[in-house]
Amino acid sequence: MRYDIAIVGSGPAGLEAAITAKVRNKNIILFGNKDLSPKIKVVDHPIKNYLGLPEVTGKEMAEAFNKQLDILDISITEEKVTQIYTMPDYFALQLSNNEMVEAEAVILATGVVTGKPYEGEEEYLGRGVSYCATCDAPLYKNKVVACIGATKEAEAEAEFLSEICEKVYYLPLYKDEIDFKEDNIEIINEKPKVIKGSLKADKLVTENNEYNIDCVFILRAAQFPAQLVPGLETEGNAVKTNLHMQTNLKGVFVAGDLTGEPYQYIKSAGQGNVAALSAVKYLDEKKRQ
Amino acid sequence: MRYDIAIVGSGPAGLEAAITAKVRNKNIILFGNKDLSPKIKVVDHPIKNYLGLPEVTGKEMAEAFNKQLDILDISITEEKVTQIYTMPDYFALQLSNNEMVEAEAVILATGVVTGKPYEGEEEYLGRGVSYCATCDAPLYKNKVVACIGATKEAEAEAEFLSEICEKVYYLPLYKDEIDFKEDNIEIINEKPKVIKGSLKADKLVTENNEYNIDCVFILRAAQFPAQLVPGLETEGNAVKTNLHMQTNLKGVFVAGDLTGEPYQYIKSAGQGNVAALSAVKYLDEKKRQ
Repeated sequence: MRYDIAIVGSGPAGLEAAITAKVRNKNIILFGNKDLSPKIKVVDHPIKNYLGLPEVTGKEMAEAFNKQLDILDISITEEKVTQIYTMPDYFALQLSNNEMVEAEAVILATGVVTGKPYEGEEEYLGRGVSYCATCDAPLYKNKVVACIGATKEAEAEAEFLSEICEKVYYLPLYKDEIDFKEDNIEIINEKPKVIKGSLKADKLVTENNEYNIDCVFILRAAQFPAQLVPGLETEGNAVKTNLHMQTNLKGVFVAGDLTGEPYQYIKSAGQGNVAALSAVKYLDEKKRQ
Repeated sequence: MRYDIAIVGSGPAGLEAAITAKVRNKNIILFGNKDLSPKIKVVDHPIKNYLGLPEVTGKEMAEAFNKQLDILDISITEEKVTQIYTMPDYFALQLSNNEMVEAEAVILATGVVTGKPYEGEEEYLGRGVSYCATCDAPLYKNKVVACIGATKEAEAEAEFLSEICEKVYYLPLYKDEIDFKEDNIEIINEKPKVIKGSLKADKLVTENNEYNIDCVFILRAAQFPAQLVPGLETEGNAVKTNLHMQTNLKGVFVAGDLTGEPYQYIKSAGQGNVAALSAVKYLDEKKRQ
């Protein structure tokens, strides 16, 4: 089955895109977390400037949002989207469980990703750089890999890699205590800097050392949009867009923090609404052709 | 006193702009109707796609909005803004009671105005075409004027004109029954077409007749933005803007339906938020200079 619209992200932008598309009778799939967005659940001071919800905490806001998802029978798919391929007539979304999902149009609402790619990351993507352990681990059976983990969730991926690979260097970007039972995982508390190689990546350089590797798995909380969708035009940390939330790629729309500042809930929701209606228009025009 | 920001319009765009500017400690004045927007009060089917307010009617939505205005101590000024003049360092807003209000920045959220100006309207503006009876009636003492009324509210203006002018032709654009007590008001049920003249306007041409006049008062429900703010760049019915809700005029920002389709509450609110933050940024930069 092919969906009409795949929406990636469950902050206000993704949620509003989902409800608007659903109200317009589109067959949608919404990727994200049941917790909605990582920011929303930690806000406990009142949010004062979301029109219609005076003085709510992030938790109360999330409850209102969840109630609306229930009413409209919208569920959140928790698999991570690791790559989106532009096919001639549709989009193929690769998930972290190695499944593929097809959609006619895509709305990206993955939030802002700070920082920038490592030197060599883009050059060696697909040739020794991967964003998905489940998808690509089998290619590195009995090999040596590095795994850069931005959040605690990446530890499970490192454990999975350790079952297949000979050795896993695990480089956490966070501060929590880590305790792996697997002997072949080595924790490296050094900042990754550069990925080097020739035809394929073969070295991960940190601030202090160099490690010979066959692949570097980079597991960020959210992916840079241009890496998630190859060919997507960006400017700094933001995806280039217009008032209709179109991108340089036909059928790919954006909404929310990944379009740039200001980072505000109601702005994200408003853009989600526009992105959904632009996607609906795109689908209608495609059908008429 | 000069306000930091004058916001014109009390639909979702103007309201969100007001609450965001107020939360950012700006000294604001909000022009509009205590009923909020003409559309919102008549919607009695549930609005399904405003994130955070599931299944509300227009009336319930307006109640939620009003509650928030109360909490933030924001009041609505009901005088109509008839003209906004760009001064070297601020904006002067002419009101329908002939008062002037000054503001450092302006946010226009007046909604969409359908149709287009009459032929000759722009040419003779200020020379026999006026949008404000209170302001300009004294210039036409004992003269003959026409008054084009888009809504029933214009009848009071026609009555006021009849006290000062020798004769008032009243051309209603609506269907209601009208009963003027004044002998010198003549109701003309013809469609106005062209305003003609030489140095000044002197004729109003309708589909059937020509009337000799000294001035035509055009009282629309909302004014075309480019007439409200001379020099404002538009494209069809929409004001030209960008993702930051800036216009071609420095210090003038826009939000909501007047920026073009889609006409949606949450989109308008999102744009109001961005317009307010852009105005705040503009004020901060001005202060630093």
